Amino acid sequence: MESLQNKRKTSRDKKKTSLGQKALELHKRLRGKIEVRSKVSARTPQEISIVYTPGVAEVCLEIAADRQKAYEYTNKWNNVAIVTDGTRTLGLGSLGPEAALPVMEGKAVLYKQFGNVDAFPICLETTDADEIINTVKNIAPVFGGINIEDIETPKVLEIVDRLTEELDIPVFHDDQHGTAVVTLAALLNALRLTKRKPEDTSVVVAGAGSAGYGITKILYAIGIRDVVVTDSLGVISRTRALGSMNRYKQELALITKPKEGITTLADAVRGKDVFIGVSGVKNLMTAEMVKSMNKDSIIFPLTNPDPEIHPKEAFEAGARVIATGSYKFENRANNALVFPFAMRAILDNRIRKISQQLLVNVAYALADLVSKEKLSSFNILPDVTNQRIQEAVNKAVRSATG
Amino acid sequence: MESLQNKRKTSRDKKKTSLGQKALELHKRLRGKIEVRSKVSARTPQEISIVYTPGVAEVCLEIAADRQKAYEYTNKWNNVAIVTDGTRTLGLGSLGPEAALPVMEGKAVLYKQFGNVDAFPICLETTDADEIINTVKNIAPVFGGINIEDIETPKVLEIVDRLTEELDIPVFHDDQHGTAVVTLAALLNALRLTKRKPEDTSVVVAGAGSAGYGITKILYAIGIRDVVVTDSLGVISRTRALGSMNRYKQELALITKPKEGITTLADAVRGKDVFIGVSGVKNLMTAEMVKSMNKDSIIFPLTNPDPEIHPKEAFEAGARVIATGSYKFENRANNALVFPFAMRAILDNRIRKISQQLLVNVAYALADLVSKEKLSSFNILPDVTNQRIQEAVNKAVRSATG
Repeated sequence: MESLQNKRKTSRDKKKTSLGQKALELHKRLRGKIEVRSKVSARTPQEISIVYTPGVAEVCLEIAADRQKAYEYTNKWNNVAIVTDGTRTLGLGSLGPEAALPVMEGKAVLYKQFGNVDAFPICLETTDADEIINTVKNIAPVFGGINIEDIETPKVLEIVDRLTEELDIPVFHDDQHGTAVVTLAALLNALRLTKRKPEDTSVVVAGAGSAGYGITKILYAIGIRDVVVTDSLGVISRTRALGSMNRYKQELALITKPKEGITTLADAVRGKDVFIGVSGVKNLMTAEMVKSMNKDSIIFPLTNPDPEIHPKEAFEAGARVIATGSYKFENRANNALVFPFAMRAILDNRIRKISQQLLVNVAYALADLVSKEKLSSFNILPDVTNQRIQEAVNKAVRSATG
Repeated sequence: MESLQNKRKTSRDKKKTSLGQKALELHKRLRGKIEVRSKVSARTPQEISIVYTPGVAEVCLEIAADRQKAYEYTNKWNNVAIVTDGTRTLGLGSLGPEAALPVMEGKAVLYKQFGNVDAFPICLETTDADEIINTVKNIAPVFGGINIEDIETPKVLEIVDRLTEELDIPVFHDDQHGTAVVTLAALLNALRLTKRKPEDTSVVVAGAGSAGYGITKILYAIGIRDVVVTDSLGVISRTRALGSMNRYKQELALITKPKEGITTLADAVRGKDVFIGVSGVKNLMTAEMVKSMNKDSIIFPLTNPDPEIHPKEAFEAGARVIATGSYKFENRANNALVFPFAMRAILDNRIRKISQQLLVNVAYALADLVSKEKLSSFNILPDVTNQRIQEAVNKAVRSATG
């Protein structure tokens, strides 16, 4: 707690960025970015008696006879809980549940704006995995879907696995699923630009949290066969001490195939085609490391707000295609391209489990929205306001259910 | 379960009332009565970077340094969770969480319409008291207040007591608090009409659930000294077997003072001034029983949708003032007169615990909104659309805090 306090203080004492200042002002003025609105008037006794009691009783009895009717008579079909325990808020660490609320409200705004999804923040007082699972299961009847957000790994991966197993509504883990989809969409177009086939492409993923785990799994799902993953201790492999890896990293150690003796990130990237950074570490990647990679390398330093390497530096070191997580640069690989549209399609198609096939299909659909003519090193992803995204994602999700 | 299934079937097979039919049609057309709306636009990268990441980080850090700031920068100040486990939905019994959702959405509509409160339904998969308490505590960070609704007694009274003790936000129990306030407001004006003083007034309360418990407590709080409470086994008293009463009924047995030997409702009402029915039993009260009461009796058969006695019958048997819970008759003692306005004032004044004084003050404020000139046997409560309610309730709530 001590160090966290210091961290906060330091950050607060720093001169606030103009963006941060604007955000503070906007939030103070709005006092909340979302509200609960009625879709119906209930002022007269007659109106109240239909919207509420006694008329509503008939609706209750219909649903009591068949729980599934809640999808027809209530807003369950469109309600999504954005669930967090505040342990991994943005890149800021464990700030507590209230401090996570501005992010979750912002996410709800984007859900509504781009997907017409009614998302409501659920910021939990507990950080215990079993308690989180129980709580989500207890509140599930109101929701058509769950969005898990900003919970620390590896705990969150277990939570997502268990909820997916035990709930009858879809559990979308944006840090894992959303990031994997947008990263793959960007990569597919980068591969097209550099004329590579997945099966001949080698990738290094720096970071083995939710994002690194989700990305590695989706890369294998599309046929990439050479992936190496690193964490803060270096390359994840079968030869590393079991105790140095949680069970999700152990899984990665078993599916990836780093060359023997390669233990550092610098060694790992040498002679590879693609670098994907989801490490949370600013400046993890150097120009030297980019230079050691294959010609026409693809560099995605996705850590926010400060990438693993500045795009300019990567470009000068020989990278051909670069994407970051930041709005400050071209090719922003932003989850907002995925979660509102994917959830819309998932809800509309009553998908129960988020399959790897579904995620892959959505990534291809997003990549395909950039036409051959417009595809370039500085344009590998569609804009979030592109009106064709929803229809393309709907089709992708439907084709994964068949 | 067997009998419940039959009950449902019988009800569903019966010709649906026109009101029920209208409600079904409306709910099918709307597919949910509430939605989550954005208070802000987030379409351009610049807008997104302030509403969401990276700009929002500054807001998160402010709240991390002081949790209370969530009231300034997020919608916590105005969020209320309407919590139920579906065990006592309307008068229909235990229908499950999904079947309770249309009621909770309706309640959210009224909260918004009359109190501008952002209420969100939380219908729980569990019916276990400890699980309910844990779940509510876990989701509390997002909310400025909790509304407990339609949970079976005595479990709910313990839940409300414990949450009130353990949470730092107010816990409003509408079935207990709301019903007590609107009943007292009606009674205060009925006493004025019949020129009675609280300390000389005798009351019988039929029903010892949440409503009966709340009403009995508030009657003592305003100085009424002669209250008798009955349940399905008859008069609640010190002489009854301990095991026949839960601990809340035991409390009522200790504070009420029925005459020795009086065990039935018929015996209890003889020679009394006021009957308040919250029994859930249609036709519990007979004309004979009303006739046995004092002159100018006050009869509030509040059970919904079918009262303990039809107002016409009570009137013909000598009742002077009658109020019911139904919109079909004059003097509807409707909780909608209380919960939206009281919660608005409770949130605005950051009240942490719902005190008896607060409830009493609100009841007096509502009663006083009916002017002397307009006060009559058929007009003892203000209309829910009365524009003066909110200001009067605000004042009442503020004066309870000092």
